[in-house]
Amino acid sequence: MEQNSKYILKSTTIDNNVVPCFDFVHTPLPDPSSLQENQLIVQTKFISVDAYNKILITPGTKFYRTVSVGDTMKGLVVGEVVASKSTKFSPGDMVTGELYWSSYIVCLENQVRKIPKEYPHPHHFVTVLGISGLTALFGLKEVLLPKEGETLVVSAAAGAVGELVVQIGKIFGLKVVGIAGSDEKCKYVQDIGAYHCINYKKSNVLESLKEHCPNGVDMYFDNVGGEILESVLEVINKNGRIACCGMISQYGNANQYGVKNLFILVAKTVKMQGFLLFDYYPKFEEAIKEIMGYLQKGMIKMSEDFNEGLETAPKVLEKLLKGENKGKSLIRIKEGKAKIYQ
Amino acid sequence: MEQNSKYILKSTTIDNNVVPCFDFVHTPLPDPSSLQENQLIVQTKFISVDAYNKILITPGTKFYRTVSVGDTMKGLVVGEVVASKSTKFSPGDMVTGELYWSSYIVCLENQVRKIPKEYPHPHHFVTVLGISGLTALFGLKEVLLPKEGETLVVSAAAGAVGELVVQIGKIFGLKVVGIAGSDEKCKYVQDIGAYHCINYKKSNVLESLKEHCPNGVDMYFDNVGGEILESVLEVINKNGRIACCGMISQYGNANQYGVKNLFILVAKTVKMQGFLLFDYYPKFEEAIKEIMGYLQKGMIKMSEDFNEGLETAPKVLEKLLKGENKGKSLIRIKEGKAKIYQ
Repeated sequence: MEQNSKYILKSTTIDNNVVPCFDFVHTPLPDPSSLQENQLIVQTKFISVDAYNKILITPGTKFYRTVSVGDTMKGLVVGEVVASKSTKFSPGDMVTGELYWSSYIVCLENQVRKIPKEYPHPHHFVTVLGISGLTALFGLKEVLLPKEGETLVVSAAAGAVGELVVQIGKIFGLKVVGIAGSDEKCKYVQDIGAYHCINYKKSNVLESLKEHCPNGVDMYFDNVGGEILESVLEVINKNGRIACCGMISQYGNANQYGVKNLFILVAKTVKMQGFLLFDYYPKFEEAIKEIMGYLQKGMIKMSEDFNEGLETAPKVLEKLLKGENKGKSLIRIKEGKAKIYQ
Repeated sequence: MEQNSKYILKSTTIDNNVVPCFDFVHTPLPDPSSLQENQLIVQTKFISVDAYNKILITPGTKFYRTVSVGDTMKGLVVGEVVASKSTKFSPGDMVTGELYWSSYIVCLENQVRKIPKEYPHPHHFVTVLGISGLTALFGLKEVLLPKEGETLVVSAAAGAVGELVVQIGKIFGLKVVGIAGSDEKCKYVQDIGAYHCINYKKSNVLESLKEHCPNGVDMYFDNVGGEILESVLEVINKNGRIACCGMISQYGNANQYGVKNLFILVAKTVKMQGFLLFDYYPKFEEAIKEIMGYLQKGMIKMSEDFNEGLETAPKVLEKLLKGENKGKSLIRIKEGKAKIYQ
């Protein structure tokens, strides 16, 4: 008998070994005839795996949303509507939204938005036209406010957001210096346009920044926090800006690193600002158009790390947290439609 | 024979025991007949002593200005022009600017600005109408962007800037909670309008903030940095703002405190911004008018801690750094004009 599959959160953690936190369970398929008004059933096609998934299962982060033990794990999904009691969606529509690590999902119409049916790469709506691209673009345009010719440093530069920050930063006329965790990643970051990329596992970050940013750093797109933030502060320029996008080095760290040189914020009149993608929701359509333009002109590309099947999800997250992914982490689910939705 | 007196910096320090850093020296009076074009001689009447003086003599702060060993110590001064080769100033004019810990000062015309001769309290131009009041006003209006009804926390609330933040915050319709270092200071802060003031030496700051700010904290005017910043971050609201005005707890501290919970900047989309008064120089006149209005209507007052004679300056700074001053630290110099300027 066909069943639904999903990951339930078994325990929260501060650790990066997240695989043991999840239970893979099978439940009956949601029955289309029992849908309420404004509800849909979505068949999952792609799941984006992101550092934010870790925040959802880490206690004490003060993040605005979370997953409780016993609940289905949340994630960014692209899927196809297979049943609908919403006037806004019909079976066959492709949608995206923050949904669940589940093959079939019952949701409310306002949990998802439509994506163009004819678009050949629907998974882009959780990558370059979704969380990664939008985070990069809003971090740059809404927080960092770059001026042509300025120097931008980006950490986790080979990560899904980072590689787009590098490329869009170049489009905006910036000198971009990346920071990443292996020579291979650094090579990739330079291949896509960075002036230089520092391997923080091999080099002294502060000394390398001094060498490669002799005029100082005007902007820092911070994906990691901790010691690297401290090093960048040491070389930041007057009126510098820091976009705090994530602090991945801190999520899995019981002994959080204390940043000691915050007085530099005063001395250099620096603005340091945290931001969250979904606060810019009203500007999504416009931003997607902008990024689609860059894509169509071949000005940006994105490396993607596809993993096959829902069951891989916890392992894919763990790989990401340990920096072992190569490109944007994605799960592809190829199963055909269950009979009851046909 | 009449002489000039001044303090020369003998050694820099990270310590709060600053008295040994200065040498009191006597030199010949500057000769009016040897003035160059655009130069003035100013007789010092008042010197403002501020935490910023400490930054000037602390190595490694990355502050935009400093005093070198062997140079005359800098400070904010109100004085009277006693000789002038500038077309903009005449003997008898009252002026203010960042000048020196010296009885008589040779300066360029663009180092000072005129203050109204008829104003009965010229020292106000280095207190409520100067560094203290302007810092409070610009921190609020340009960085914190308060909305009526919001909750504002201010540290060093009984300090020169802090007490004006409390009072101007009240004028702007905010709920103001202060943090200070003694019951006596806390009583003063509540007397001038704070909803509550936390004695950080006696109370757990985080628990007290939770108790007295049950709806969280929207803005933090940070004069101290360190552990108190960390506590405020724990209770900050979504879209909170932090104005980093100074981090006095850190200036005299070889083991700088590391702030561990910066991830809250992301989780709560907080803006944390350092600022320096002189960046707002073009807006000074307008701001002084605004504060003068509050003064004339009796809406704000300022407690002043007068010390008599230039020779007290290092002791006054040390007292300030140790939190032993009561109100704005000032030095008053009452000596008559030297004969050669009469």
